[in-house]
Amino acid sequence: MCEANAYLREGGLEELFFESVDKVIPREDGLILEDIFGRRKIIKAKIAELALVDHKIILEKE
Amino acid sequence: MCEANAYLREGGLEELFFESVDKVIPREDGLILEDIFGRRKIIKAKIAELALVDHKIILEKE
Repeated sequence: MCEANAYLREGGLEELFFESVDKVIPREDGLILEDIFGRRKIIKAKIAELALVDHKIILEKE
Repeated sequence: MCEANAYLREGGLEELFFESVDKVIPREDGLILEDIFGRRKIIKAKIAELALVDHKIILEKE
């Protein structure tokens, strides 16, 4: 499976926000993240970087 | 390997833009995409959706 973990980057640190993310859908007011089990989290953030081979999605608060 | 293919969505169609993408880095003026071989493409577009289990990055022109 090629899900990734989403990290929130703040002040140079990356904190795990959501594991096993399958889908990311940007919306006007933030991002919808959905994991491989269909669970969702919404966050007012933007994608700062994807590093898929490392299974990483880096987010930054807007 | 968990790279994904990037597709450009236009008029309801999705056209393959770049294969085996590892990194995506949003910049003010568009996206930098880097494949697993280190080759880069730059496009004035935004991420419309990620579907990582399906190995898909969907882009839309800005």
